[in-house]
Amino acid sequence: MALREEQVLERITRARGRRARLREDAVTLAHGAGGRAARTLIDAVFKDAFDNPILDRMDDSACFAVNGADLAFTTDAHVVSPLFFPGGDIGDLAVNGTVNDLAVSGATPLHLSAGFILEEGFPVSSLRRITASMSAAAEAAGVDIVTGDTKVVRRGQADGCYITTAGVGVVHSPPAGDVRPGDAILVTGPIGEHGVAIMLARGDLDIEADLASDTAPLNCLLADLAARCPGAVRRMRDATRGGVAAVLGELAADAGLAAVVDEEAVPVRPAVRGACELLGIDPLHVACEGRAVIVVASEAADTALASLRAHPLGAGAAAIGHLHDDPPGTVLVKTAFDGTQPIAPLPDDSLPRIC
Amino acid sequence: MALREEQVLERITRARGRRARLREDAVTLAHGAGGRAARTLIDAVFKDAFDNPILDRMDDSACFAVNGADLAFTTDAHVVSPLFFPGGDIGDLAVNGTVNDLAVSGATPLHLSAGFILEEGFPVSSLRRITASMSAAAEAAGVDIVTGDTKVVRRGQADGCYITTAGVGVVHSPPAGDVRPGDAILVTGPIGEHGVAIMLARGDLDIEADLASDTAPLNCLLADLAARCPGAVRRMRDATRGGVAAVLGELAADAGLAAVVDEEAVPVRPAVRGACELLGIDPLHVACEGRAVIVVASEAADTALASLRAHPLGAGAAAIGHLHDDPPGTVLVKTAFDGTQPIAPLPDDSLPRIC
Repeated sequence: MALREEQVLERITRARGRRARLREDAVTLAHGAGGRAARTLIDAVFKDAFDNPILDRMDDSACFAVNGADLAFTTDAHVVSPLFFPGGDIGDLAVNGTVNDLAVSGATPLHLSAGFILEEGFPVSSLRRITASMSAAAEAAGVDIVTGDTKVVRRGQADGCYITTAGVGVVHSPPAGDVRPGDAILVTGPIGEHGVAIMLARGDLDIEADLASDTAPLNCLLADLAARCPGAVRRMRDATRGGVAAVLGELAADAGLAAVVDEEAVPVRPAVRGACELLGIDPLHVACEGRAVIVVASEAADTALASLRAHPLGAGAAAIGHLHDDPPGTVLVKTAFDGTQPIAPLPDDSLPRIC
Repeated sequence: MALREEQVLERITRARGRRARLREDAVTLAHGAGGRAARTLIDAVFKDAFDNPILDRMDDSACFAVNGADLAFTTDAHVVSPLFFPGGDIGDLAVNGTVNDLAVSGATPLHLSAGFILEEGFPVSSLRRITASMSAAAEAAGVDIVTGDTKVVRRGQADGCYITTAGVGVVHSPPAGDVRPGDAILVTGPIGEHGVAIMLARGDLDIEADLASDTAPLNCLLADLAARCPGAVRRMRDATRGGVAAVLGELAADAGLAAVVDEEAVPVRPAVRGACELLGIDPLHVACEGRAVIVVASEAADTALASLRAHPLGAGAAAIGHLHDDPPGTVLVKTAFDGTQPIAPLPDDSLPRIC
């Protein structure tokens, strides 16, 4: 069953060597949706132009050493609509998003920057509410917002407030080697709550549900995991745009492996399941903002799960599948009735401005 | 003439202790223009919410140590309109802006992040042109763009392309103590070219002039200066929004001193002077993107000027004035005819989206 080491390496090299081709002449909403179109834009435009080995790794954070300190560095632009939603707002989302990108890179987040693009006429009271929320989120994550910038554009040139955060952290637990066939796939809790909460807040769904965004800082949860399972955590990613499916899709493509998900093992709250059925989308495609996908050596899966579940933000953690040899670069879903099928692709225009 | 050390410290403490009060209920273009309104927004909203000693210093970069490495970290949001202009575009502006914020903090810029907010329908060809320009600017400054993010918003929710860069550098020459009365004020070259080039590109000015933005990376110029004048460079700032006047205004307010500028000594190209006369604004208020204001100990002024002029990006450097005791917190302009007058305030609605 298992591929030989050199076969794995060859698949990875082949997968990475494929040159991305962008067919569109203009940017579409799909290019920002976190799925295949977004990845193609990144590969064909940004990676092509900025070409350097740190960026080429395409991790959630860039990792490099400065005078002997192992640093992680990341950024996220936030354009969520509406700005305020059950469970959070653009402020704590912007802080947690960057904190989590550092945390899944095995880093302790330290300092954040915040760049604001404000639309003329934006209420100062809303801005104060957002900055208060950022401050509370920063305190909860143990980071400081140490530098910033503000630009104002005319009415109609933005939609209220956009925030781009960047963050610097210090790496404590770099990934333990490449992912490989047999590794277990975990999620840290029920999925899709952020995306559905946003759709409900927008009125996109004609239902009422008591559901809040899962936005949360994952740094303590993931640092505890790394301490409990030294050398066993191969990969961590936070499942934001495109959801768990996008994370697994990139992971499978990069490694030249198959990610096989046991549908019944995926934790999904009833309100999320109901909303996804109405919309005809798979909860695996729906954004989380406080959940991570973790690939661990199969023998460490139970310890890892116990570690996650011991923490309030990981109480609903579950093992949802494994990595397999074949078919390379795919995400398969195993259902009780239909056997194993490739996951349906993310609808291109599904969820703009989800984060 | 000179204040006693404790008098200087008392003035600084008093100036910093004043609590900023924001009168407006809604964000105005002036809040993004780099003058007094922008400073009030920062003090009353951002500093108030994010309260921490690194941010409170309000330097161009946040400086802190991580595992023994002295780091600088900064961010800038870029919303310049038009995106392409003589001498540059939003891409090299976004790279140089962050490189310069690190450079004026006495740091060697190392790695940059870039967060893109794109409007649906934005031409991919324009995006490629911008990323190529960023790549060239990064190479010129000796930095890499190592991490990024892209969001897409619907038509009418942005104006083509906004870019927020952040940057990490390593500090080589921290500022040599507080500024003090008698210190010399230098600029690294002719001022106001970026701002006027943007106004010309917008068609805001009914004149033709052969003028290009001064956008440029200042890291080598300023590192050479620090090496040539060890211990003498007290403060460096790049003069962007609000121009040299905004830099001097903040510096004077923070230090409780007066910045006195000799108008005839300020290097201004004829096309910039002509444009400013037409607009009725002082060139000292017009943005540069490749010029720094430097405060040096008076006895080191000549050496510093010689060092700057030895570098192509500092060939037009000049000593433009001195710091004085009184009146505290002011910028005064000494003219050949009128004696010494406080500089006219920056017109509130003057120059939105200049960078």
